[in-house]
Amino acid sequence: MYGVILAGGSGTRFWPLSREEYPKQLLNIFGNQTLIQATLSRVSDLIPSKQLYIVTNPKQAEQIQLQLPSSGELGPHFISEPFGRNTAAAIGLAAVTLRKQLQDGVMVVLSADHFVRHTPVFLNALRQAEQLAEEGYLVTIGAKPTRPETAYGYIERGKVLSENSPASKVLRFIEKPKLEIAEGFFQKDAFFWNTGIFVWKVSTILTEIERFLPELSEGLKAIEDKIGTKEEGDCLEAIYAELPATSVDYGILEKSDRIAVIPTDMGWEDVGSWNALDEVIPKDADGNIITGNVVNVDSKNSTIYGDKRMIAVVGLDNIVVADTDDATLVCDKASAQDVKKVVAILKAKKAESHRVHRTIIRAWGSFTTLEEGPGYKIKRIVVNPHSRLSLQRHKKRSEHWVVVSGTARVTCGESVYTIQENQSTFVPMGVKHRLENPTDEPLQLIEVQSGRYLGEDDIVRYQDDYGRAKNGRIEKKKG
Amino acid sequence: MYGVILAGGSGTRFWPLSREEYPKQLLNIFGNQTLIQATLSRVSDLIPSKQLYIVTNPKQAEQIQLQLPSSGELGPHFISEPFGRNTAAAIGLAAVTLRKQLQDGVMVVLSADHFVRHTPVFLNALRQAEQLAEEGYLVTIGAKPTRPETAYGYIERGKVLSENSPASKVLRFIEKPKLEIAEGFFQKDAFFWNTGIFVWKVSTILTEIERFLPELSEGLKAIEDKIGTKEEGDCLEAIYAELPATSVDYGILEKSDRIAVIPTDMGWEDVGSWNALDEVIPKDADGNIITGNVVNVDSKNSTIYGDKRMIAVVGLDNIVVADTDDATLVCDKASAQDVKKVVAILKAKKAESHRVHRTIIRAWGSFTTLEEGPGYKIKRIVVNPHSRLSLQRHKKRSEHWVVVSGTARVTCGESVYTIQENQSTFVPMGVKHRLENPTDEPLQLIEVQSGRYLGEDDIVRYQDDYGRAKNGRIEKKKG
Repeated sequence: MYGVILAGGSGTRFWPLSREEYPKQLLNIFGNQTLIQATLSRVSDLIPSKQLYIVTNPKQAEQIQLQLPSSGELGPHFISEPFGRNTAAAIGLAAVTLRKQLQDGVMVVLSADHFVRHTPVFLNALRQAEQLAEEGYLVTIGAKPTRPETAYGYIERGKVLSENSPASKVLRFIEKPKLEIAEGFFQKDAFFWNTGIFVWKVSTILTEIERFLPELSEGLKAIEDKIGTKEEGDCLEAIYAELPATSVDYGILEKSDRIAVIPTDMGWEDVGSWNALDEVIPKDADGNIITGNVVNVDSKNSTIYGDKRMIAVVGLDNIVVADTDDATLVCDKASAQDVKKVVAILKAKKAESHRVHRTIIRAWGSFTTLEEGPGYKIKRIVVNPHSRLSLQRHKKRSEHWVVVSGTARVTCGESVYTIQENQSTFVPMGVKHRLENPTDEPLQLIEVQSGRYLGEDDIVRYQDDYGRAKNGRIEKKKG
Repeated sequence: MYGVILAGGSGTRFWPLSREEYPKQLLNIFGNQTLIQATLSRVSDLIPSKQLYIVTNPKQAEQIQLQLPSSGELGPHFISEPFGRNTAAAIGLAAVTLRKQLQDGVMVVLSADHFVRHTPVFLNALRQAEQLAEEGYLVTIGAKPTRPETAYGYIERGKVLSENSPASKVLRFIEKPKLEIAEGFFQKDAFFWNTGIFVWKVSTILTEIERFLPELSEGLKAIEDKIGTKEEGDCLEAIYAELPATSVDYGILEKSDRIAVIPTDMGWEDVGSWNALDEVIPKDADGNIITGNVVNVDSKNSTIYGDKRMIAVVGLDNIVVADTDDATLVCDKASAQDVKKVVAILKAKKAESHRVHRTIIRAWGSFTTLEEGPGYKIKRIVVNPHSRLSLQRHKKRSEHWVVVSGTARVTCGESVYTIQENQSTFVPMGVKHRLENPTDEPLQLIEVQSGRYLGEDDIVRYQDDYGRAKNGRIEKKKG
């Protein structure tokens, strides 16, 4: 079996913890793992890492890569979408990639940001689904409702397919219902949440795409022709832009007659907004979920995501507070769906806080913007052991570096020298330089940038350990 | 007439905008002036600046001083309480100070943090009160209630004192009443809010203190003996600690038979908590008070005090959000009185955020702690034109300075030199140094401190323009 993990996302629903370039799947909301790490480890007993395909965009691919274990074995493949074109296109792109490489096989479609409480139940359902997929079914995994949820789609099951399995034909799919309708579904045994987890043969789904979405099918074939050639990237970009943006549910599943459902009771949730956390995270005696540096006086039923800064909450009921370095959200849980309106406003205002965090993680370490003002910007930079930034030059700014812990090897013009904790150096405007941590301990330094223009795009890279000196698209990033 | 302004305060009610060392009276909540600036300018037509006495503690005196206009004329006097001992002691200390200097006179007791909408009405009441005070009355100023407020005390007036004035005898004082009682008062013409603004002769109040609070009277006399001598400070500190902490209302006014009230309709408020702002600040169409960098989606009846950082509020009703660099409050308005519980918790935890802000204002400029970590601390320092910090030395830290705007004259050991924007310098541990702005423009620099101990008290001052090299008490401050 092959795993296809849909890992896009716009970062709006869990803003300000999520950002456009750092969406939900990259967050550690529940515990020890981020959502994508949990997704990968959940299937690891069934699908080896090298049989996983992560469909995402280039910026998110970079961040996902940083969250993968750096083991010796071959990790997941990345399939890069130049733009989001909804699930039918993403799944189709994965399917033609698999067909090109493997002719055929059973693929499991997963989302990078789901919660599953009972992994063995989930894996068992996938195993059952595999058999049905081999028989030519498009198999959906259904989850037994635990409440009349209106934020999920439902599946009504029909006849069972065989005596000794709960797998059934699907009577119909129902999109997010009104509460009265959802309450009716919740009373009956025949209705399941549509998890968006699908199992089918590559050949089956591509046949169905050809049948129901011929335009998408044509585009995918054209892309398939170029996979593995040097025109692949350009072709993908040109064709993808023109593909119809349809969901696989609406475009295929609601129309096909080859659909089966495996009902499960696996404790599944699609954590779609701040108030949805209530379903998956244990609460204190007053119904609160509280993390971080928080002082609470008499609040209840509230979710407080603090960080280092002090958050004091007094007498709140049913409120979400989520704090980050550069932005804080305070939201009534009843309005949690409207957080995306905030992000839309920030985007329209061109505020950076919809797009990135103040701390940006890179392969070599991270940097945090501490303060910006006219003519200066202050960053804390952490360089991982035995890592280095690119050999680079800035046309419009100079940089002062003060080491606060660790040891830095500095290249500045023709000189190469070492500075330690409590030493500083100066990189004049226009001078080629490089920052390197040659030790086993992290290097931490404060950078004070000075100049009339301090944008991240004022950088010319000459050599880079992460391939960024060659690639126009990501050349403009810091580091 | 002499003005006595009670300017203490623990900084709890408007936390996190107010702090222990920066209480409400220092805040600019309503507009162009801070509360103490407004208090001083409100009486300026009636009482010359040099006849004003501000009763406060030494730390707050320093901050108040920075908010006074630096005109050539003689400013207000400061009377320094070593500890807070409630209003009877504070008023008594002012009274004996005035008796020592002037024998007798009429004194107006004001609070530093009141709101008055109609200044001419207020001043007119003070003029009427002055006459009654001369006749030996303890005169209180009453304010006509505009609602059945339960957070204020009330005065019931009795017979008018003369035909052509509304001034009346006082029947009784009522402490903060329950709502049903307050509603009854609000219906009747005979009840007024007790504003805590009093007018009386120095000799009258001291006679009444002698009569009703003999222990306080004895202590005050002992202090009065030493006023103007070199034992004044030690004597004050020793005696003040033992004085009874009684309010003038409870200790004197509720017992004396020489009380009059001048009823007014001056638009008075004692802005005692975050939700009390609703009474004095104009609201938008949805009932919100919003300042700072705030994005609001569908919130109503809420007060949002943002600053530079982005605050997004979604669907809130009746909530207060107050943001500062190091702490954010989110509070239901119904629980606004419980903000003091937060401050008590922070104090118990020894969290700095109950005591000071991240930006601390000094006579020479200001400094802001941007970040602290193990072994380092980063500050932005602003030095006012033609100002300088003390000549100083640190035993346990070195300092890197990077100028981001302006020009610094640096003394470091035996050297004196100038650095400009985009230049930096290093002050090694133990070396005597001084930072000075010799120009007409502000100087802004980033300081990276490095060392095993980075407390503000690691400072030895050799010369200081603000007298701090001599005074043990405030020697330990930064700057």
